Amino acid sequence: MHLPHLLAVARGDEPADLLLTNARLVNVLSGEVYKTGIAIAGGRIAGLGEDRPARRTIDLDKRFVAPGLIDAHVHIESSLVTPPEFARAVVPRGVTTVVTDPHEIGNVLGLPGIRFMLESSEGLPLDVLVNAPSCVPASRLETSGARLEAEDLQTLLDHPRLLGLAEVMDYPGVIGGDPGVLAKLRAFAGRPVDGHCPGLQGRELDAYAAAGIGSDHECVTADEARAKLRAGLTVFLREASGARNLLDLLPAVSALTERRLCLCTDDRLPEDLLEEGSIDHLVRFAIRGGVDPVTAFRMATLNPAEHYGLSDRGAVAPGRRADLIVFSNLSAPRAEMVFRAGELVAEEGVLVAPLPARGAAGLPRSVRIDTSRLEFAIPATAGRVRVIGAVPDQLVTESLVLPATVRDGFAVADPSRDLLKMAVIERHHASGDLGLGFIRGVGLERGAIAGTVAHDHHNLVVVGADDRSMRTAALAVAEAGGGQAVAVGGEVVSLLPLPIAGLMSDRPIEEVARRARELRDAARQLGSRLREPFMALSFFALEVIPALKLTDQGLVDVERMRIVGLFVD
Amino acid sequence: MHLPHLLAVARGDEPADLLLTNARLVNVLSGEVYKTGIAIAGGRIAGLGEDRPARRTIDLDKRFVAPGLIDAHVHIESSLVTPPEFARAVVPRGVTTVVTDPHEIGNVLGLPGIRFMLESSEGLPLDVLVNAPSCVPASRLETSGARLEAEDLQTLLDHPRLLGLAEVMDYPGVIGGDPGVLAKLRAFAGRPVDGHCPGLQGRELDAYAAAGIGSDHECVTADEARAKLRAGLTVFLREASGARNLLDLLPAVSALTERRLCLCTDDRLPEDLLEEGSIDHLVRFAIRGGVDPVTAFRMATLNPAEHYGLSDRGAVAPGRRADLIVFSNLSAPRAEMVFRAGELVAEEGVLVAPLPARGAAGLPRSVRIDTSRLEFAIPATAGRVRVIGAVPDQLVTESLVLPATVRDGFAVADPSRDLLKMAVIERHHASGDLGLGFIRGVGLERGAIAGTVAHDHHNLVVVGADDRSMRTAALAVAEAGGGQAVAVGGEVVSLLPLPIAGLMSDRPIEEVARRARELRDAARQLGSRLREPFMALSFFALEVIPALKLTDQGLVDVERMRIVGLFVD
Repeated sequence: MHLPHLLAVARGDEPADLLLTNARLVNVLSGEVYKTGIAIAGGRIAGLGEDRPARRTIDLDKRFVAPGLIDAHVHIESSLVTPPEFARAVVPRGVTTVVTDPHEIGNVLGLPGIRFMLESSEGLPLDVLVNAPSCVPASRLETSGARLEAEDLQTLLDHPRLLGLAEVMDYPGVIGGDPGVLAKLRAFAGRPVDGHCPGLQGRELDAYAAAGIGSDHECVTADEARAKLRAGLTVFLREASGARNLLDLLPAVSALTERRLCLCTDDRLPEDLLEEGSIDHLVRFAIRGGVDPVTAFRMATLNPAEHYGLSDRGAVAPGRRADLIVFSNLSAPRAEMVFRAGELVAEEGVLVAPLPARGAAGLPRSVRIDTSRLEFAIPATAGRVRVIGAVPDQLVTESLVLPATVRDGFAVADPSRDLLKMAVIERHHASGDLGLGFIRGVGLERGAIAGTVAHDHHNLVVVGADDRSMRTAALAVAEAGGGQAVAVGGEVVSLLPLPIAGLMSDRPIEEVARRARELRDAARQLGSRLREPFMALSFFALEVIPALKLTDQGLVDVERMRIVGLFVD
Repeated sequence: MHLPHLLAVARGDEPADLLLTNARLVNVLSGEVYKTGIAIAGGRIAGLGEDRPARRTIDLDKRFVAPGLIDAHVHIESSLVTPPEFARAVVPRGVTTVVTDPHEIGNVLGLPGIRFMLESSEGLPLDVLVNAPSCVPASRLETSGARLEAEDLQTLLDHPRLLGLAEVMDYPGVIGGDPGVLAKLRAFAGRPVDGHCPGLQGRELDAYAAAGIGSDHECVTADEARAKLRAGLTVFLREASGARNLLDLLPAVSALTERRLCLCTDDRLPEDLLEEGSIDHLVRFAIRGGVDPVTAFRMATLNPAEHYGLSDRGAVAPGRRADLIVFSNLSAPRAEMVFRAGELVAEEGVLVAPLPARGAAGLPRSVRIDTSRLEFAIPATAGRVRVIGAVPDQLVTESLVLPATVRDGFAVADPSRDLLKMAVIERHHASGDLGLGFIRGVGLERGAIAGTVAHDHHNLVVVGADDRSMRTAALAVAEAGGGQAVAVGGEVVSLLPLPIAGLMSDRPIEEVARRARELRDAARQLGSRLREPFMALSFFALEVIPALKLTDQGLVDVERMRIVGLFVD
């Protein structure tokens, strides 16, 4: 951007590249909505006002203009598509900047995975700013594909789109002053450091904040949000596919608190992105919930910009980037035009900017399994087993103890009792490590489901009614280089290949959404009562969320953070 | 600060250095006022809550606690004392951080003057953060003691207390894209750049903001403030000794605008600092004017901290510096205790922290005048003269044309017509340059007043009823190495020496305030009707404020920005 030219356009001495006339501007800086023109030069706002020389003029006919939306925290991998396809979904929604944590691919592929996300988000009509994943792996009770220490993360610091440190989930490590965790905080001193501290309060919350953690996006009640605001954290209000917290959090939004609040999507499935939307959905949701539109926009524009020190965006004012959305209804904003750095990039819900290819050249195959050692049989050594109790629409599970169903000396799945077998197969190093257990609540009457999206280690997780179906589903996923599958007996009923790190497809997002729907329907036809069986599957192996989980290392008692035996005397 | 220890205190595993119990905290982050304890360790807030182990406890008996106050913009030189004496006045008022622009001493002594302000503010119980003066000299129509270009200012950047670039007063230079001005902006890219743009609006305001200027403190009406908020400037609401704008600006303070507003004092005389106060006065003023106390405190704590990116202060929250004030009345806060980095530095209005000496060792004598060329006689070459029309309580003047009083072929002062003679004597380089003119509105019936505080060049300005008194006053000031004086005939009636750059005294602030009062009274006894004759005197020579001013180069027509003749045909 050439400042003398921008100044000449601001003065009116040279014509603007583009003048939007007859706009109603949502000015998040002054808190007003008023009629004005907007002059753009060299990708930036040159000035406001109607009567200005311009090479091109668009009469907005009293439509509204707001700054481009900013997603304060999102894992792009959760959309099951690559950054270009993610951009194709969210940019037409008005999202022009996302702050992403490539935590999932980082756990699978380490630094090369993070660099892939940086490279594949180059040249998009979306600014993808990256926070370095702070917790790879999530704990010592799992086998992930990589381990990232402070010195590894530091190698990312010179990338121009590397912002800070992503959600520090190891809050016990922060609070306890773990040297490895503190080394990461030191490595990112002076940069934004985001947090993740579900339910933390009192002295522990104080310690977490005192360490310099700047935000949290795990609040589930307004009181929790208020306590975290008091402690100095910026609170990100989340509405993810699997964690729908916004409604419960809206009571925490007030004139006095709004400046310390941002909106974030965290994890959104492709279908939700296409049907509900991204941050635009949260803005509409907040307004419908009674939040003043200017405040709703602030939480999605100015506030995340200020939180991350992005003074070049987040508002429509002279000198800032011309990231803009145009819409007709202030009570339910839906982008009709989206400008990014002054260029029209989407119109009527469709991306009009060119996209680079979504290929994944150079990424290694990430699924390495010794199929000769895939053995799911469980010799019965006692009469009762620990069983994971799935809870609908929750990431937490119950820890149950139930009588085993024993046949020929083996503990087996028993669909008649809603007792399914579960396996977690280490898939990064072909170590042959395999955790086995039982789960209740998934509800399959026959067949099996399997997938390589399994937070945070992303090993291959299988749940099934019989060993043969489990083996078929697991092999289908392995042969696809990662993905999600439904199988019955020897037949693969449905398959979504996710060849990029076993997390993302190389196909268009509409196709991925359709296949994901087919998968879900196939699992439901086999009897599953879960709304999103594969979303649920991806959290059954996450050993940092209570109460009983299964990793490739075995059953984890999360409260005591240790491996426990399957059989109980 | 040792983080593991801070965390241990936050957890309650180790005792705090100090626990304030029974406090009512003004939490500027959450917008609430509530009862809590505050634990301090290593100069930082470790945590909140009453029940914590501590080596020392102070029961605040329900008194209020707020963050230490921040003055967003102040010229310390205007208090006529050195930084240590300034600290002795403002710290007991609750001010723990000031952002200062050493513009006055910079105009007199250049970089050595700025370094003197940095060095003499070392080790104070007050954080003196410095913005580099951007406009030395203020214009080409004056002779200042120094000229600072971008490359000069850059040499300051490695100082740990150098924040950014101070008020860019040359707004025509910014708007017009003057290469020297843009070079200064480039030199401070990524750092705060403060503005100064009285009355600027429309396209010119857009251009000024587009250049990256971040603030303005010259608003005089609420509408002007709103327009500047719209353009993206942070607005500093000012209440200086000579520019009392806060009352007029309060209507611009609302729930939607408050986050973009800060309070600043700009220039305060020693008497005002001692009697009214500093930023604490503005906080009380705002609350009395109907502003919610939390909002008033935000404008004096969190907002300036955010504006300048000072994430270590501005709020009472874990990890931030323990800069605190304790007071009893939320409607009229008056600091009873002041803590700075956890240490009690003032109590009941008195500084209890040690102060370094206020000496000015190493600074050169700044008043260099060739007294042999001090000639005030004006040969009359026409019948009418241009006359500066002083306006009470305003920095602007009128441009008058009046008949000269001619005696023996010379145009002379004529107190009977309120027509006084004025001289501006170049005092930096002993060049002998001298501007002569006439002024109406000062009202002296006899004698003369003189001073070396004269924005922005700080040449020696004299106004008098006769040449002999003028010479006596000027010589008294010159012999004192700078200062302010009142003389009648050959007698010096009152003198305030300001030997440090001709701007500051080396004496205690109480003594300076007393002498300044004596000076003012002496000027009034000679007939001056001005409320603050020496404050007024210091602006009669400021050629960047309309309409007619006198510099050492001659009479300046400010509207046309050129030198004009004294006599008019």
